[in-house]
Amino acid sequence: MDRTQLRRKPARGSHDRDVIDRICDEALICHVGFAAPHGPVVIPTTFVRIGPELHIHGSVGSAMLTALSEGGSACITITLLDALVLAKTALHHSANYRSVVAFGRGRVVEQREDKLASLAALLDKIDPGRSRACRPPNDKELKATRVVALPLTEASAKIRSGGPLAEDNADDAALPYWAGIIPLVTSRGERIPA
Amino acid sequence: MDRTQLRRKPARGSHDRDVIDRICDEALICHVGFAAPHGPVVIPTTFVRIGPELHIHGSVGSAMLTALSEGGSACITITLLDALVLAKTALHHSANYRSVVAFGRGRVVEQREDKLASLAALLDKIDPGRSRACRPPNDKELKATRVVALPLTEASAKIRSGGPLAEDNADDAALPYWAGIIPLVTSRGERIPA
Repeated sequence: MDRTQLRRKPARGSHDRDVIDRICDEALICHVGFAAPHGPVVIPTTFVRIGPELHIHGSVGSAMLTALSEGGSACITITLLDALVLAKTALHHSANYRSVVAFGRGRVVEQREDKLASLAALLDKIDPGRSRACRPPNDKELKATRVVALPLTEASAKIRSGGPLAEDNADDAALPYWAGIIPLVTSRGERIPA
Repeated sequence: MDRTQLRRKPARGSHDRDVIDRICDEALICHVGFAAPHGPVVIPTTFVRIGPELHIHGSVGSAMLTALSEGGSACITITLLDALVLAKTALHHSANYRSVVAFGRGRVVEQREDKLASLAALLDKIDPGRSRACRPPNDKELKATRVVALPLTEASAKIRSGGPLAEDNADDAALPYWAGIIPLVTSRGERIPA
């Protein structure tokens, strides 16, 4: 069975690359799941999408990057939580979200120019123009840094939006409780100089 | 080797239960990593901490909940992203965050009263008092809902805070680039009625 097939609530799913790309580009972190001898491990990290790949960087000593590039299949999940959904009945409560789940094996980005471009893209995602507003990596730093790219070929998006589902029956619909959504907004505060 | 031992940057780590609990109580979602035949799968979901356990609920048809309660060891990761950290050099850029990684096997919460208490705690976490401001689950709904609890016994927290690290040398420290942090704030917007 195709592992990107959506089992739960498939109506919320999408394999549209534009939809997937937009979620990847808005999110600042992803959660990387990889197999360790004792079971799966899930680690949060920053990332950047470059074309059809997700790029993650870190120390050459990172167990996560080693597992991503040398281990079996990994899973990268990206989640944007948009709202809490309050219904008149307890079990109709939900959340609005946009998520991407991508499966695959990573490849190490080896070429110097490719590594530099990847790191610059991450900096510019975090703060537009930042790659030209700081000292670029030198050879020693580049050597100590690993960049791993995971393809978005086996990826799917899942989105829930809007208000609570209609209640199951007229009695529930007539309940006097408030129903609606509480939007969640992530914003950038004032910069604090070091 | 103890799998909660922190390998990367152990100085950022903590096994203090108060630290772990506070992160769990502030975060609205976690990422659940479980083993599937083709490799790890990572799924975002809401959760609530009740005492020394993380509670997750969903449909009895949820593959994630089945894996959590009947499969091997799983990993639940909770991440709060607090700030982007901008340094004078590209590779000193970082992020401030608070995260918890918990390993273990889940147990199905079977008793009716325990399930109701767990669902009420989740509602009250999402919106204080909400469990008394909606219709509680009925027997049919409860039967279709699975609650799984994962112990926090094998858990660790990791925290980065503050500004960028000191630059490696005087030349870098003298660079004219701005350095500091961009705080990230998640806030609740105005409620939107259904």
